[in-house]
Amino acid sequence: MSGRIRLGMVGGGQGAFIGAVHRIAARLDDRYELVAGAFSSDAARARASAAELHVAPDRAYASWQEMVAAEAARPDPVEAVSVVTPNHMHGEPAIAFLKAGIHVICDKPLCHTLAAAQEVERATLESRALFALTHNYTGYPMVRQARAMVAEGAIGALRVVQVEYPQEWLTTRLEESGQKQAAWRTDPARSGAAGSVGDIGTHAFNLVEFVTGRHVESVAADLTTFVPGRRLDDNAHMLLRLEGGARGMLWCSQVAPGNENALRLRVYGERGGLDWAQEQPNLLVHSPFGEAPRMIRRGGAGAMPAAAQATRIPSGHPEGYLEAFAQIYRDFAEEIVAAREGKAPDPARRLVPGIEEGMRGMRFIEAAVSSSQRDAGWVAIG
Amino acid sequence: MSGRIRLGMVGGGQGAFIGAVHRIAARLDDRYELVAGAFSSDAARARASAAELHVAPDRAYASWQEMVAAEAARPDPVEAVSVVTPNHMHGEPAIAFLKAGIHVICDKPLCHTLAAAQEVERATLESRALFALTHNYTGYPMVRQARAMVAEGAIGALRVVQVEYPQEWLTTRLEESGQKQAAWRTDPARSGAAGSVGDIGTHAFNLVEFVTGRHVESVAADLTTFVPGRRLDDNAHMLLRLEGGARGMLWCSQVAPGNENALRLRVYGERGGLDWAQEQPNLLVHSPFGEAPRMIRRGGAGAMPAAAQATRIPSGHPEGYLEAFAQIYRDFAEEIVAAREGKAPDPARRLVPGIEEGMRGMRFIEAAVSSSQRDAGWVAIG
Amino acid sequence: MSGRIRLGMVGGGQGAFIGAVHRIAARLDDRYELVAGAFSSDAARARASAAELHVAPDRAYASWQEMVAAEAARPDPVEAVSVVTPNHMHGEPAIAFLKAGIHVICDKPLCHTLAAAQEVERATLESRALFALTHNYTGYPMVRQARAMVAEGAIGALRVVQVEYPQEWLTTRLEESGQKQAAWRTDPARSGAAGSVGDIGTHAFNLVEFVTGRHVESVAADLTTFVPGRRLDDNAHMLLRLEGGARGMLWCSQVAPGNENALRLRVYGERGGLDWAQEQPNLLVHSPFGEAPRMIRRGGAGAMPAAAQATRIPSGHPEGYLEAFAQIYRDFAEEIVAAREGKAPDPARRLVPGIEEGMRGMRFIEAAVSSSQRDAGWVAIG
Amino acid sequence: MSGRIRLGMVGGGQGAFIGAVHRIAARLDDRYELVAGAFSSDAARARASAAELHVAPDRAYASWQEMVAAEAARPDPVEAVSVVTPNHMHGEPAIAFLKAGIHVICDKPLCHTLAAAQEVERATLESRALFALTHNYTGYPMVRQARAMVAEGAIGALRVVQVEYPQEWLTTRLEESGQKQAAWRTDPARSGAAGSVGDIGTHAFNLVEFVTGRHVESVAADLTTFVPGRRLDDNAHMLLRLEGGARGMLWCSQVAPGNENALRLRVYGERGGLDWAQEQPNLLVHSPFGEAPRMIRRGGAGAMPAAAQATRIPSGHPEGYLEAFAQIYRDFAEEIVAAREGKAPDPARRLVPGIEEGMRGMRFIEAAVSSSQRDAGWVAIG
Repeated sequence: MSGRIRLGMVGGGQGAFIGAVHRIAARLDDRYELVAGAFSSDAARARASAAELHVAPDRAYASWQEMVAAEAARPDPVEAVSVVTPNHMHGEPAIAFLKAGIHVICDKPLCHTLAAAQEVERATLESRALFALTHNYTGYPMVRQARAMVAEGAIGALRVVQVEYPQEWLTTRLEESGQKQAAWRTDPARSGAAGSVGDIGTHAFNLVEFVTGRHVESVAADLTTFVPGRRLDDNAHMLLRLEGGARGMLWCSQVAPGNENALRLRVYGERGGLDWAQEQPNLLVHSPFGEAPRMIRRGGAGAMPAAAQATRIPSGHPEGYLEAFAQIYRDFAEEIVAAREGKAPDPARRLVPGIEEGMRGMRFIEAAVSSSQRDAGWVAIG
Repeated sequence: MSGRIRLGMVGGGQGAFIGAVHRIAARLDDRYELVAGAFSSDAARARASAAELHVAPDRAYASWQEMVAAEAARPDPVEAVSVVTPNHMHGEPAIAFLKAGIHVICDKPLCHTLAAAQEVERATLESRALFALTHNYTGYPMVRQARAMVAEGAIGALRVVQVEYPQEWLTTRLEESGQKQAAWRTDPARSGAAGSVGDIGTHAFNLVEFVTGRHVESVAADLTTFVPGRRLDDNAHMLLRLEGGARGMLWCSQVAPGNENALRLRVYGERGGLDWAQEQPNLLVHSPFGEAPRMIRRGGAGAMPAAAQATRIPSGHPEGYLEAFAQIYRDFAEEIVAAREGKAPDPARRLVPGIEEGMRGMRFIEAAVSSSQRDAGWVAIG
Repeated sequence: MSGRIRLGMVGGGQGAFIGAVHRIAARLDDRYELVAGAFSSDAARARASAAELHVAPDRAYASWQEMVAAEAARPDPVEAVSVVTPNHMHGEPAIAFLKAGIHVICDKPLCHTLAAAQEVERATLESRALFALTHNYTGYPMVRQARAMVAEGAIGALRVVQVEYPQEWLTTRLEESGQKQAAWRTDPARSGAAGSVGDIGTHAFNLVEFVTGRHVESVAADLTTFVPGRRLDDNAHMLLRLEGGARGMLWCSQVAPGNENALRLRVYGERGGLDWAQEQPNLLVHSPFGEAPRMIRRGGAGAMPAAAQATRIPSGHPEGYLEAFAQIYRDFAEEIVAAREGKAPDPARRLVPGIEEGMRGMRFIEAAVSSSQRDAGWVAIG
Repeated sequence: MSGRIRLGMVGGGQGAFIGAVHRIAARLDDRYELVAGAFSSDAARARASAAELHVAPDRAYASWQEMVAAEAARPDPVEAVSVVTPNHMHGEPAIAFLKAGIHVICDKPLCHTLAAAQEVERATLESRALFALTHNYTGYPMVRQARAMVAEGAIGALRVVQVEYPQEWLTTRLEESGQKQAAWRTDPARSGAAGSVGDIGTHAFNLVEFVTGRHVESVAADLTTFVPGRRLDDNAHMLLRLEGGARGMLWCSQVAPGNENALRLRVYGERGGLDWAQEQPNLLVHSPFGEAPRMIRRGGAGAMPAAAQATRIPSGHPEGYLEAFAQIYRDFAEEIVAAREGKAPDPARRLVPGIEEGMRGMRFIEAAVSSSQRDAGWVAIG
């Protein structure tokens, strides 16, 4: 293994949630070194953040524009940059870094509008740099295992998909309290046309396509805003139709008391079923039809190479959210190292979510919003 | 307490499943005595069944027509009759016994067609006899508790309802194997226009209305038949809209490997959530927003009179399906005893599911089938 | 099947808990008819109980002495009698009925003293009547399954046994409140030399021997009375040594808040493990070493005839405590019917707990108390 | 915050398990930088490990003796060193580094013999450097929460403690297969006088004392070696007596199929109970007597500052074993930073397990082995 990858960050200054997660994820497997950042549009906070993060003062930038220019001019520029700003500020920095030949790791969803996303897509296709989108739940070992089992036919031809992602945190009008996370996530200008659908529905949608290996062709969606005064949906119910005839449901909610991040996916085929829940991520229940359900545990009997590749410690010692998030970084590190030698990832085998997954998510949001506007009529996903 | 209620049965001869369940349910609380029956259209089986069930030979009838005539002529006729035939044979005997002034306990769904159901409805309204429909899941103590908690405002104004009833037993074409239960349940002539929707979707629907105290106003339903050659739906996905603005989803399936009778209901309101699952029926999880979720157990701390009224033994000693089923019989026994003295049940406080619930179920089936035929467009429920 | 077995009852009048359980258990499978009883030493309560239970006034006796005399003189006497009094009143009526040739179903533990128990043992051995002890947890289908799996070698040679039965109900000095159950269960005169050990420890002990098919040879026991003023142990910790070299632990407690009747048994052998818990009784987890653990469900895939024989309804519809209790009655009914034709049960295949299990329990109590008095030194079990 | 702490490592070369865990733990919160190591007694492996770990070749030492000498002579020596060798090689390097004024983080158990441990104790007391022992389970937020709840009286006076740590991995004679972990852990020369008791029993014991804040005064232990040919115990059952009158049980096993690292602690007091399990570490069930049990989740309602201090991300996103392990490193980093300014940790408030916990563990091992040799007679713990 050669040296660590030089990493920069856009956003993620003091007080931000997801920036800290990205940094731990980058650090966990020791493949990256954070050396530069435009952590905040507030200059004092940017400097303070840099100091706290052991980033040299001369690489603590006041803006991403300044950062891309300065880094590109260095002999040892950042090789990759994490974009962890609110949704509406993903596109421009991502494009700028891609144009500078610097790999981009972008938080999801891709952008706040489909148009902005398409520009990122174009920039990605035109760049030799790589693009990763942190659909972090795909980094869980047992999600990888589920995907591998579906691919190898463990449940037979797919019939039914049930996915849900309920949360409780926006049960009241938290955005009025000054809570930053709530404020931007419920603001159309910063989040885009969807609330819960963009924030968590996209994760659920991505998980379905990742595990089943099939596209969702169309949705019939009923988006609701339950909390008075809120400007975006905080609950969505959807019917799904998938390639090949499978049917499904998707529920996402931010107003379901008792649920923290209760993402759960169940898939059923002609020969069996699989059940996985994010809050107990080390377990995958496999129910071959006609046999007793089996509890496959990360690293235990029945765990496949696809799971083993995404784990660090023996079974029974639970891994969690940060490890799954780190897996995206770890897999992307492999791609970056290969790219140094001119090797591009094979799209058919790529585990890292990229621009295609980002565009699928944007089209899903668009279709869901559009369907809901048509009283839950079916809308095809781009 | 006066003597036991004299009970008759239509259907339920040797080899039937639900007939035996009804008999245990009737017996469990010692409020009924089975004294007559038209157990089978096969005369030999009818006689053999009667002998096994300690029913006197002269009250083992060859048909329900014969039974109603003979019983009505006795000085000590049956006071109530359980109708446990396949769906298409519910209506005629139910009407005949109601006309004879004999109380009817009918298995669900009410009938195989809405027209047939309407005739039963008319007969019920014209009769002084009482009618009960065995939506047995409403007999579980913690379902009663959930209903009482919603009614008293424990979760605040209702927002979201998630109900599901997955099974696995029809994952393959079992009806071709000669299995009787599978054969009639997948046969439109005997079941009606819906398969999974009629057999288990109606239970899920009834549970929603029972617990929330609100009507489902309309459904957008996607019914599917996954098993080739099957004649009725074996999976259904639905969006729900309820009175008062709540939204929900209903999933029922007979092709979901790993699921036995995994009926589960979750309801969420402005102030909290409730979660109940049939396969662990002694537990109700209550999540007041902003507090740690509480595990309310049948008979334990937090259990209300509504639960206590429907239980027999201390908490920690699990009660199950038969006890819940028996609860319907026990509550109906109270009504029958009151009826002997001319007292009719108060519709507003009635716990026993009756003709109204039966008609709601039939209209739900009709709406679901109709919606699915219109590509999951919204259809109002009668 | 011939007619129902005529059943009598000693104890179990109004207000008693376990008497009602026995009656439901007897009734559930329709093999018994309650026709006589000495329900209470209080004459008025005895009469009232009889009326409520549909027992004819002339067979509602003021005492068991009167009952045994009168019944023995009838042409249609009770064939079996359930003894459901507190422990110190088990022995005398049991002996009297056995001497009268009437089968006895006795609640556990067998007696309040070993000496009293030995007299019942002698009476049983001298009688042609049968004796059953309601170690009801052995009636659960998945307990039967566990026993069958151990017997057929599914887990290999036995190594470790972990059994526990924690409750919470005596966390405070409930016996001072007038609660009848608490009063006699904490009274040495009525319960015997042990509190929690006699009341629930015996169940745990019996479960170990039933499932493993092996005797516990010796115990090292630490009995404690935590609640000030209480006269018997309310918590016990024990080390176990079994025939053949297996080791184990037994914990029973009545002062463990959060636990209702959390009886749980785990057994481990050279090739696998089994895990069963009374509060989720329809599930048995089987962990073959080197394979993913399997969730075997009552009636589902992997369930054996031993389980099927003890169940009534399809899997997924939970059975509970009353059904397990009824199973003891149902199996005993088979023995009684066979006894009518002179057939005695085969001790090697008998599922109904009998006098031998009763004596094992008494010797276990004696050994545990004795060990605790010797500061948890090892004491052999008879 | 000042710069990262310069960290060295003894042991933990390629192929080792626990060394990698320590490195991730040190890295996760960005408080340490690994700059030196004596990773292996095999020189080639030591060099290769250093290269892989980004350690400069001149600080990749062939032995800890060489390392301590060279580092002590540098202007920028390591400030702390992690000792992650097998048990019998903990003592000497720990003492050497302590004498050199370098903080030590030592894997558990402290040593392979009590005598060796006492030398480490002496060196610690004589050194101004700090000593930490990685009883990593105490780093879990909900373990911290449990400790805080017990301390503030949430369950009242302590009565009963149930702790267990079953594993399955040594069900067969894995040490014969060449598996390194199994080989040294079952070797008395490298592990000490106890097998399962030293490896995992010490964790269970430490957890009891950490959470309850009370010492275990004496044990009655039954140690067993089930796997033929094995030289150390692979299963142990113990009765416990604690200061203040509480009683308990401890079970540890390496031969319990189905269990991975199923460490679980339950404590019961006069007013309530607590239940925590390592494989679902984000949940603590609190059962106040007379109220419904509450599911307290890391970061959710009811979580206290003691838990919040030990967590990084919002509730619902599971943290696991690595985060808990990292917490020990993070807390120790605070102590190291304070030590730079001459501040010593307050023993009464210290969360980092240290030499006292190490000695307690050694005395526990000695007492358990001694008790077992006396046929499970009671033995006081030092």
